[in-house]
Amino acid sequence: MQFLKVDTLEEAREKLLKEVNSCFTKTEKIALDAAVGRCLASDVICPFMVPDFRRSTVDGFAVIASDTQGAGENIPVFLDIVEEVSIGKPAKKQIRSGQCAYVPTGGMLPDGADAMVMVEYTELFDETSAAVYNAVSPGRGVVQIGEDAQKGTILLQKGTVLNAGSIGVLASVGISEVEVFCPWRLTIVSTGDELIQPGTKRNPCEVYDVNSHAILALAREQGMTAVETIALEDDEVLLEKTLRRAMTVSDIVVVSGGSSQGKKDVTAQVIDRIADPGVWTHGLALKPGKPAIVGMDEPSGTLLLGLPGHPVAAMMVFELLIIWLKRKLFHEKEKLLIPAVMESNIPGAPGKTTCQTVKLIPCENGYLARPVFGKSGLMSTLTQADGYVMVEMNREGINTGETVYVHLFS
Amino acid sequence: MQFLKVDTLEEAREKLLKEVNSCFTKTEKIALDAAVGRCLASDVICPFMVPDFRRSTVDGFAVIASDTQGAGENIPVFLDIVEEVSIGKPAKKQIRSGQCAYVPTGGMLPDGADAMVMVEYTELFDETSAAVYNAVSPGRGVVQIGEDAQKGTILLQKGTVLNAGSIGVLASVGISEVEVFCPWRLTIVSTGDELIQPGTKRNPCEVYDVNSHAILALAREQGMTAVETIALEDDEVLLEKTLRRAMTVSDIVVVSGGSSQGKKDVTAQVIDRIADPGVWTHGLALKPGKPAIVGMDEPSGTLLLGLPGHPVAAMMVFELLIIWLKRKLFHEKEKLLIPAVMESNIPGAPGKTTCQTVKLIPCENGYLARPVFGKSGLMSTLTQADGYVMVEMNREGINTGETVYVHLFS
Repeated sequence: MQFLKVDTLEEAREKLLKEVNSCFTKTEKIALDAAVGRCLASDVICPFMVPDFRRSTVDGFAVIASDTQGAGENIPVFLDIVEEVSIGKPAKKQIRSGQCAYVPTGGMLPDGADAMVMVEYTELFDETSAAVYNAVSPGRGVVQIGEDAQKGTILLQKGTVLNAGSIGVLASVGISEVEVFCPWRLTIVSTGDELIQPGTKRNPCEVYDVNSHAILALAREQGMTAVETIALEDDEVLLEKTLRRAMTVSDIVVVSGGSSQGKKDVTAQVIDRIADPGVWTHGLALKPGKPAIVGMDEPSGTLLLGLPGHPVAAMMVFELLIIWLKRKLFHEKEKLLIPAVMESNIPGAPGKTTCQTVKLIPCENGYLARPVFGKSGLMSTLTQADGYVMVEMNREGINTGETVYVHLFS
Repeated sequence: MQFLKVDTLEEAREKLLKEVNSCFTKTEKIALDAAVGRCLASDVICPFMVPDFRRSTVDGFAVIASDTQGAGENIPVFLDIVEEVSIGKPAKKQIRSGQCAYVPTGGMLPDGADAMVMVEYTELFDETSAAVYNAVSPGRGVVQIGEDAQKGTILLQKGTVLNAGSIGVLASVGISEVEVFCPWRLTIVSTGDELIQPGTKRNPCEVYDVNSHAILALAREQGMTAVETIALEDDEVLLEKTLRRAMTVSDIVVVSGGSSQGKKDVTAQVIDRIADPGVWTHGLALKPGKPAIVGMDEPSGTLLLGLPGHPVAAMMVFELLIIWLKRKLFHEKEKLLIPAVMESNIPGAPGKTTCQTVKLIPCENGYLARPVFGKSGLMSTLTQADGYVMVEMNREGINTGETVYVHLFS
């Protein structure tokens, strides 16, 4: 009965970080446009000053600011137009006092000029001169060299999950390829004589296989790839054969199903037989999610995870261990949590960390967190809940009115 | 100068909803495992009672609760074991007073039994009888028929974006195929003589094309697909030819680039020439994002969008119009906003809705929203900001200490 020596969530996480080695953070170079949602494996250094010329933020005339002093709505200052700068082309002339040059938004200010007057505040006086009706201070309408980003500074940090904004930033400095972490390859095995696959006809009491589909979805949401999902009958020999093969092609093998004590023991025994060092976590002090096992086969570099049979528990353990591990090893920022006020008391569980699913109810100044209670294994908790709240092991519970931080389901 | 008649954001949205027709919500049937992140195009009805048998939530003995009255830690009640139920198989016997049956977690309770006693509170007395050390009330450890979901009720609503939890729920009722909205097909055209592509060598003042990459990333984050991204020089004939072709293969054609007044006019003129009814929104009362144009070609069913040249503004307009439209037409739930307290004042703009980028700073009981100020077009605002706050058109601004709701960048 090794389940008596369960790990706390913290212990299980510490062991994971200690045991899992660098083979879990392979990297690859991919095209920028394919990198949405991927995680940077190295800092991106700014390759040049951004901008590397003094850039206008408006359509208008580049001037020497002091030339415009005294100008106003009814008092124009007249300046000679010496150049029309094109966007994408260097300015050629030097602006001297009494001169100006037309510069479009994004265009380069000529040397000598130190401010822009918007075209709306000017009037062409004749072919070669402009009337300026606005006094500007130096720097007005100008992005200075390096103002957006300095050459050599870190533009984006390792661990940045690339969204549209960061893709835009990379494009803006000409980067067309990025080094990202390789997605983890998973094999998902669900076991159970009672399991049948969705889409097939069901006899009374047969149970549709939920876990392999839900875990596959969770993994895909995280950018992981599935080598294979396999449904097995309860057969120790078959399980061993399947796991041996899966270990050769996967970074992580997830075995789910069979929530009964006996079945979990079989999974642990099989893993211990075929993997080195084998299982190091025999159960988690977690509610829901106790019957979880974690181990590794170092020769093949495969992490082995046994999940509880209950879908909600299985998903929670996958999230709290595997997705957590990914965030740690990929140096990803912590997920943003949603502050909310508990609408009613939720109990903790003695000696266990509790994950309580909650629904977020908009209220004045934020959200109320309403617990979604349900017997173990009810799928309906998943359709009602927006996320979950964690009750630390040493707490009796959380009281009505306390502020909590909700982990959102994606 | 049609930009003088700009639409408010609300007007632009109303026109969009009015003009865009049903060709924008085609649906398709896809396999459940391929449906993560996709949006349900029809309600999913629960096909049977879940569960459709009385299911045990524990490993233990199915009993008649009244038989256990008076049992306790030191006072066993002895019951005859009449059956061992296997998971996935129907129970066969009828339990009468004085009898019990072994039922594993997930297994079926035999008729007559009305509660479960966990195996931990029992002891095998001999081959055919068990000692029960726990008094249970009726229903204990049992999920009743239909308790999780009733046959014929809506399990998941049209508009549900399928995450791991909802995929699990669908699998649990045997559904292997779902009807989802087809992804919108985009062509993204960026224009500008000054633009060069990331990965190519840059001459002074040339500008890397940001918009097509950032908009492509935004679209992909939303599950849209890109038919093509095209970079064009400023050439009206070429633009017309490109848009004509794009309209035959795309649901949406996005033209970005050229932030100057003149260029936008060209885009609007080309669209008006080749599309029916053509452009109906000539500019938005939005900061940033004023030089945006929206129109349609009804014969080909193509939405045509001209975006501002500044990447931040372009992304904001795409988010506020196209992603907003997708949420509306797909019946998606509103995005969850993050409540936060403004750390400093932010100004509104007269006659415009303002989108102010902010960074979320954790504080006691939630987050502070710190404005990320930056001159128009600075990319660095995108690396610093977590999202944005909207200042309604008729507001002067938002004051320090006010609660705001932050729209997160993904």
